[in-house]
Amino acid sequence: SAAHQLYNPNWDEEKNRMVFGKCANKNFHGHNYTLTVTVKGEINPETGFVMNLVDLKQIIRDQVIARLDHANLNHDVDFMQGKFSSTEVLAEEIWKILAEPISRHGAQLYKIRLDETLNNAVEYFGD
Amino acid sequence: SAAHQLYNPNWDEEKNRMVFGKCANKNFHGHNYTLTVTVKGEINPETGFVMNLVDLKQIIRDQVIARLDHANLNHDVDFMQGKFSSTEVLAEEIWKILAEPISRHGAQLYKIRLDETLNNAVEYFGD
Amino acid sequence: SAAHQLYNPNWDEEKNRMVFGKCANKNFHGHNYTLTVTVKGEINPETGFVMNLVDLKQIIRDQVIARLDHANLNHDVDFMQGKFSSTEVLAEEIWKILAEPISRHGAQLYKIRLDETLNNAVEYFGD
Amino acid sequence: SAAHQLYNPNWDEEKNRMVFGKCANKNFHGHNYTLTVTVKGEINPETGFVMNLVDLKQIIRDQVIARLDHANLNHDVDFMQGKFSSTEVLAEEIWKILAEPISRHGAQLYKIRLDETLNNAVEYFGD
Amino acid sequence: SAAHQLYNPNWDEEKNRMVFGKCANKNFHGHNYTLTVTVKGEINPETGFVMNLVDLKQIIRDQVIARLDHANLNHDVDFMQGKFSSTEVLAEEIWKILAEPISRHGAQLYKIRLDETLNNAVEYFGD
Amino acid sequence: SAAHQLYNPNWDEEKNRMVFGKCANKNFHGHNYTLTVTVKGEINPETGFVMNLVDLKQIIRDQVIARLDHANLNHDVDFMQGKFSSTEVLAEEIWKILAEPISRHGAQLYKIRLDETLNNAVEYFGD
Repeated sequence: SAAHQLYNPNWDEEKNRMVFGKCANKNFHGHNYTLTVTVKGEINPETGFVMNLVDLKQIIRDQVIARLDHANLNHDVDFMQGKFSSTEVLAEEIWKILAEPISRHGAQLYKIRLDETLNNAVEYFGD
Repeated sequence: SAAHQLYNPNWDEEKNRMVFGKCANKNFHGHNYTLTVTVKGEINPETGFVMNLVDLKQIIRDQVIARLDHANLNHDVDFMQGKFSSTEVLAEEIWKILAEPISRHGAQLYKIRLDETLNNAVEYFGD
Repeated sequence: SAAHQLYNPNWDEEKNRMVFGKCANKNFHGHNYTLTVTVKGEINPETGFVMNLVDLKQIIRDQVIARLDHANLNHDVDFMQGKFSSTEVLAEEIWKILAEPISRHGAQLYKIRLDETLNNAVEYFGD
Repeated sequence: SAAHQLYNPNWDEEKNRMVFGKCANKNFHGHNYTLTVTVKGEINPETGFVMNLVDLKQIIRDQVIARLDHANLNHDVDFMQGKFSSTEVLAEEIWKILAEPISRHGAQLYKIRLDETLNNAVEYFGD
Repeated sequence: SAAHQLYNPNWDEEKNRMVFGKCANKNFHGHNYTLTVTVKGEINPETGFVMNLVDLKQIIRDQVIARLDHANLNHDVDFMQGKFSSTEVLAEEIWKILAEPISRHGAQLYKIRLDETLNNAVEYFGD
Repeated sequence: SAAHQLYNPNWDEEKNRMVFGKCANKNFHGHNYTLTVTVKGEINPETGFVMNLVDLKQIIRDQVIARLDHANLNHDVDFMQGKFSSTEVLAEEIWKILAEPISRHGAQLYKIRLDETLNNAVEYFGD
């Protein structure tokens, strides 16, 4: 659950309003984002798991939820400073954060899916 | 999709943080609220409807969505000025707005349900 | 999954189009209706059930699904002949069909809920 | 996520199989139960809440989830000993556990809803 | 929300009934189709978007919803004339309609997903 | 709806409890698994279908549901004997069972998706 505002600081208010519509509201609006993280890899013959979900949940909680939940994407989130708070950019930044810690657990980050509303979502598969 | 902040102006920041937790974040956070409006009444023998959904949707769009969507509940919404932006209070205020226009279409407002997240919701049935 | 058309035979096409909009399309349109049947009663001390769901499902399948599924509500369904194929009327008619067979199994029909789309639904509690 | 088996110890296996069908499987089967707790009350004028969800979640987690999650309803759960592990009975027992701690927070337990599968659910409103 | 009938005009009624079952009902049946359109592309450095959803929604509304909603797929829809009204064929035809207007907005159509019911869906990725 | 227990017979109880947590509970727990089967292929010019869903559903019902539903994955299911009852392994085994009968109907198995809970799922695309 986070607040954000879409705007391009190089544009005047009129152009921002034209391109981003109500999303440019200067007092912010917000969403319940839903994050789905997909990892791939071989099944570990000692556990039957590709990756222990206890570990995956811990990584997501520590690295993403703790920094984004109940925050303002434009003001409170370190890794979003100076960036568009669009779902596309947010998905890309979450990928950068999660890829390495996941790889340390024997799996590989495969997809970041971020649902902004029940109707809009972004899927990012890395470069 | 709206932003809000929960706080009691009569309390200091510490008490607000203690009671409202991350919801007291001064830069706001946000949600995709889902509003469900239930009306009751007799079936109109000329249409088979209790109320024509075209009319109900128009009322909800004009009276609620136009004022709440992509807004900041604490700053942008006239009927929420000086009120807690909790889901409970918001549901009550939406009831006050919708009851009369619905009654002019031969039906009666029965329930306002407001889902704040997939896990939290309020149902209000009037006094 | 059923087809239907909303129209009042006492009105001309223009008035039907005005009141029912696209729902008056003479070639029909259709929906995946979702039916939820709620029964109430005491817990049977020999089973822990209010009503055995095997029995309830059998009744719904025999009395409702077999007659409505993949049908045209205006033309194919005996109990809808000469009636509006609105969700309200359909819910009422389903109530009439299910109330008695359910009561023979020691429970009482409490509510018929019929979802026409993800956004529209009717709940009927009897007279 | 819990395992259970439906059977009546006063009946032989054949009768249990006839009444409970595959639910009588002696090696158990299981479900992801979804519990929805509804409380009612006045809005607290200092918070805008009927009840602080932090408190409600804590109660549910301590009293119910900790005892039921990843457990066998027939063998591992103290308050289900000697009872049918039907959804009806489980909902009733959860009500007994939650009613008092909720009332200590100024609200009143109104409804326990327990979904056993996407198709089957029980709602219990107290006596 | 659309009506349709599945049948092969080269087959007699018996064969149609055998292959298509209740879907061959001559008075039609219907569904609430859910359409999900996925586009891919680079993030536009001036907006943070791959494609402005305002534009995407406008294209879908003008090109698809306006022609399919509350229609009879076998009789009312120009681009389905003489074609099977299966979900597979419908998804393919929607692809043909949407690919070009989307490409004029700097993105590329990636996937058409069409859910016919909660249980059945088709995904089409182009040739 | 099935029961299972996660454990590695080569480990002692302490290590099993450390790795599998509550999933190692010796009295089992359970889930409502949701299976989604995706096939690919050319559209049959005589039906408009890639594969007739009547056939696909029959195969899934006969080969998978009949063997897994209301069963204990560790004890009752022939093809899971001596295997981890993790979602990953289960998805792989379901693939092995379904691939050949689907190919006999002119389509090709493309993906097995198995949701264990609303939050956890596995997708398997074959080797």
